[in-house]
Amino acid sequence: MANLSRNFLNVLKGQLNLKFHPRHNSTSSKLVYAEHGDPVKVIRKETEQIAEPQPDEVLVKMLAAPVNPADINTIQGKYPVRPPLPAVPGNEGVAEVVEVGSSVTTLKKGDRVVPLVQGLGTWRTHTVISKDDLLKIPKRMGLVEAATLTVNPCTAYRMLRDFASLKPGDTVIQNGANSACGQNVIQICRAWGLRSVNIVRDRAGIEELRCFLKELGATHVLTEEELRKTDIFKGSQLERPKLALNCVGGQNALEMLRHLQNGSTMVTYGGMSREPVTVPTSALIFKDLRIKGFWMTEWSKRNADSVDRFEMFEELISMMTNNELQGPAFKMVNFEQYKEALMNTMTIKGMIGKKYILEFK
Amino acid sequence: MANLSRNFLNVLKGQLNLKFHPRHNSTSSKLVYAEHGDPVKVIRKETEQIAEPQPDEVLVKMLAAPVNPADINTIQGKYPVRPPLPAVPGNEGVAEVVEVGSSVTTLKKGDRVVPLVQGLGTWRTHTVISKDDLLKIPKRMGLVEAATLTVNPCTAYRMLRDFASLKPGDTVIQNGANSACGQNVIQICRAWGLRSVNIVRDRAGIEELRCFLKELGATHVLTEEELRKTDIFKGSQLERPKLALNCVGGQNALEMLRHLQNGSTMVTYGGMSREPVTVPTSALIFKDLRIKGFWMTEWSKRNADSVDRFEMFEELISMMTNNELQGPAFKMVNFEQYKEALMNTMTIKGMIGKKYILEFK
Repeated sequence: MANLSRNFLNVLKGQLNLKFHPRHNSTSSKLVYAEHGDPVKVIRKETEQIAEPQPDEVLVKMLAAPVNPADINTIQGKYPVRPPLPAVPGNEGVAEVVEVGSSVTTLKKGDRVVPLVQGLGTWRTHTVISKDDLLKIPKRMGLVEAATLTVNPCTAYRMLRDFASLKPGDTVIQNGANSACGQNVIQICRAWGLRSVNIVRDRAGIEELRCFLKELGATHVLTEEELRKTDIFKGSQLERPKLALNCVGGQNALEMLRHLQNGSTMVTYGGMSREPVTVPTSALIFKDLRIKGFWMTEWSKRNADSVDRFEMFEELISMMTNNELQGPAFKMVNFEQYKEALMNTMTIKGMIGKKYILEFK
Repeated sequence: MANLSRNFLNVLKGQLNLKFHPRHNSTSSKLVYAEHGDPVKVIRKETEQIAEPQPDEVLVKMLAAPVNPADINTIQGKYPVRPPLPAVPGNEGVAEVVEVGSSVTTLKKGDRVVPLVQGLGTWRTHTVISKDDLLKIPKRMGLVEAATLTVNPCTAYRMLRDFASLKPGDTVIQNGANSACGQNVIQICRAWGLRSVNIVRDRAGIEELRCFLKELGATHVLTEEELRKTDIFKGSQLERPKLALNCVGGQNALEMLRHLQNGSTMVTYGGMSREPVTVPTSALIFKDLRIKGFWMTEWSKRNADSVDRFEMFEELISMMTNNELQGPAFKMVNFEQYKEALMNTMTIKGMIGKKYILEFK
């Protein structure tokens, strides 16, 4: 009876386009930028009345949202995706359902969800979103793992799945192995029985980093210099890699190429050295190496409703809840301290960059 | 009756492994090298008794065989394929059947054939070869077209077929467009209704070259400099290319990449500039460009008996006999003058390198 009258009200609202007073007395906060530039300068905080969900919409309360390098680049106007301005930054996050629209049956108050769409603007305390744009996740999933599910773990998963036919015992080589994505690659390789050869820059504390990555499941951890002289592929113990994952470029990517099996693919998903990828002509012709790129944003758009996508989420969530896949090193800061998160993300230092995560309380 | 007794003789020979005197009184000549080095120095001419074909073999008389750059590199020991020494050079050619083994029914005396296998050693007057390693071709096919069928036309054909899904009206871009393979690309594009944008180095006589390539069917012919500033893709008249074919490398290949549609492939099959292929990270990630290589030798080995291969030969031969596809500019020299052919192939000059073809008389 209560449901019926509420449905009736919503139908009325839809048909007559009537505006009712929102039943939420509280306001919502969000970060907004109206022009591109230095994130610390162009972003301001705004408050607004919390809206009410339409029949197929859901009102959610954000719990945590990471600050990713791509968010910074988007605000700076240096990313290929440029949302219409003014815009709310943030593409990832985990939220709790506060209220569902009258026709929503797949979600209920209290459910944990992550957004399935890009550009939602997760750096805000509340938002109203179509039920179809949310993925329900188990509550036992860690908050950090949930908030950072849709970019790095998915990137690692797809690169390991879609560019080579790998079977247990096969070898994968990657550079920038200590990156957030690199750590996911190591752990997924371990879970799938793949061997990973992980290249990192030499640095103070290299042995500590080596230990950390081996704990995650790395088969080998080598510096760029060590890679040049390595004999790990000489014997019969380790097959040459069938897949290389590159987020560095330049000489480092070239060194990886030298070790690949004929017919293998190198996938580029980042360019931390700011140097292009250089490939000897003979490696293309006589070794049949293939050089490709991967962009998670584009993949998700093209495969939004695909079976592949939901199988991937299911498997990753299962790995995360089974402790086979842990989230990144992180620092949680209150939403109010967003400037600290921005500044630190722009100047990542140290062994393993900590992911800054905005917490909404 | 004559056939029967001959068959009987051959069966006897096969079973008892008897050696009969060859019925050919004449001797055969061949070029041979026993060590890698300067072709003019390491190659010598030898004569030998002409052998007799086994039941499933064929004795052929070579009519014409080209001197390809890859032959030179093989003799120099600079090619990834190294035949056991001593070896007879030459991978392409056209021959006439002189005598067939007793069980051969698919070929007869007087048929024209080209070898289906690599490393046969075509720089000789006669050879005995398995019937399965020969492709019968129509006699009305030009001698030059037949002698040069299996490398350049096939390379052009496969690159246009296997790396993009092209439909009439689509655009292909290539550099080194005046190369032997480039000329095939232009003509096959014309035959298939594809538009070709052809890049050549600026040179004395550029207008003459432009005319020549346009006569072959080139949609546009641009120098490297013109490509940088071109507005041919600005309007709606010409779609951006879906495929780039690269035999130059370096800056020139990079310039081609800039004009490709997202998701396109650049295929490298040569590296005339001796510079590697350089790809910006953003082109891989955000434009999803794919960088691959192609080697006809490897393709032919992997697809030796495939339907694709024989469909390709059929279509190319049909194009050649219909005058849709003409052979390269060439100079025919007598087999005895092989040194002239070698020296000129090593120092190709001028607008369009002439293909030297050894003629056996």
